[in-house]
Amino acid sequence: MNAEKIPDIIIGRLPIYLRALQRMADNGMKTTSSQELGDNVGISAAQIRKDISQFGEFGKQGTGYSIPYLLDKLREILKVDRMWDVALVGAGDMGHALARYQGFVNRGFCITMVFDNDKSKVGQKVGEFVVEDAATMAERIKAAGVKVAMLTVPASAAQEVADKLVQAGVKGILNYAPISINVPNGVKVQHIDPATHLQRMTYYL
Amino acid sequence: MNAEKIPDIIIGRLPIYLRALQRMADNGMKTTSSQELGDNVGISAAQIRKDISQFGEFGKQGTGYSIPYLLDKLREILKVDRMWDVALVGAGDMGHALARYQGFVNRGFCITMVFDNDKSKVGQKVGEFVVEDAATMAERIKAAGVKVAMLTVPASAAQEVADKLVQAGVKGILNYAPISINVPNGVKVQHIDPATHLQRMTYYL
Repeated sequence: MNAEKIPDIIIGRLPIYLRALQRMADNGMKTTSSQELGDNVGISAAQIRKDISQFGEFGKQGTGYSIPYLLDKLREILKVDRMWDVALVGAGDMGHALARYQGFVNRGFCITMVFDNDKSKVGQKVGEFVVEDAATMAERIKAAGVKVAMLTVPASAAQEVADKLVQAGVKGILNYAPISINVPNGVKVQHIDPATHLQRMTYYL
Repeated sequence: MNAEKIPDIIIGRLPIYLRALQRMADNGMKTTSSQELGDNVGISAAQIRKDISQFGEFGKQGTGYSIPYLLDKLREILKVDRMWDVALVGAGDMGHALARYQGFVNRGFCITMVFDNDKSKVGQKVGEFVVEDAATMAERIKAAGVKVAMLTVPASAAQEVADKLVQAGVKGILNYAPISINVPNGVKVQHIDPATHLQRMTYYL
C-alpha cells in the first residue's frame, strides 16, 4: 500500500479500469471478472489481477469483482472520491474544447477558472466560464487552493506559465503545449500532444 | 533493429526526443548530448543513451549527437520522414480544435478529410476543411489510402466508427472518445482522455 513503491505504469492503468467499470455500472452491471474487464480494455486478465492486487484483495475467487465496491476502491486510491477544482490556462481552440468538454463529469474534476493573457479574450465567455486575466492567475489559484491545472498555451509560453502555476501551489499539470516542461519534485506533469501519439503508432505501420 | 523486439515504452519516448531535438534545431543548435537532451525532456541521460542505442550508434563519445543526423534517423525510425494523410472523424468541439491545430506542421501528419454523421454539420467549414458526410467515410478513406485517423466522436459511437475505419484500411487510430476501443491485431490505438491523465496525477497528490 506504499504509494512510492507501486510502479507508475500500474497507476497509469487504474484510470482505464475505473473508466470501464464506470461504464459497466452505467449499464446496470453489478459484478465482473478480470477476464471480462480485460476484454473490455484490451489488457490481459492476469495483468489486471496483478495490478489490482497491489492495493489489496478486492475480488473473490469464483465470484469476481463487485463493481460498486471496486469502483469505490479505485476512486479512493486515485483520490477521485472527491472533486478537484481545475484551472484552465489558455482560451484558444483547445481551451474552448476543454471548457465545454462533458467527459469530466463524475470523474473527479471540475474546471472552475479559465485564464488567458490576451486582453481581447479576457471577459469573454468560454463554455460557461468568463475568461480571467492571466495576470491574476497566481493570486486566484493560491486563494482558491487549486492544485490541478490544464495548460493549453503556445509552446513558447508553456514553461513560464508552468513555473507560475507551481509557485501558486499547483501540484498536477496536464500540458497540451507541444513541449516538455520542467517542474520540481513533488509536482506531476502529464503531456497530451496528438502528434507524439500519432508518431508512436506510425512506427508500427 | 527488429521492430517487434523493441519495447513499446521505448518507442513511446522517441517522439518526445524528436520533439525536443526539433526545437533545438529551430533554435539553431547543431549538436547536443544525452545529458542536455535529458535535462530538456526530464529523462535521465543514461536512459536516453540506452533508448537510442537500440537503433544503432548515432552518437560519438565526447562530441555527442549531431542534431540534424539524429533528427533524420528518428524521423526514419518513426516513419515520419514522409507525410501521413489523416482522417478526422467527429466535427464537435474537439474536432474543431484539432482541425485548426498548428502542432502537426513538420511532424509528419496532415489532416486531409473531416467527417461527421450530423447532417447539419455536413458541408460546414471546420478550420480549412468542409465537413463530409460520415456515410461516405469508408469509401473516401479506402480510395485515398488513408492509414491514420483521429476519432473525436461520443463514447457511444466510438467502437462502431472504429470498426468502419479498420474495415476501410486504417491502421492507426488516435481515440479521443472516453472509452476503450477494440481493434484487430495489426491496428494500433492510442487514447487521449484528459480525465484519465488527470486521475493518474491525483494519485500522487
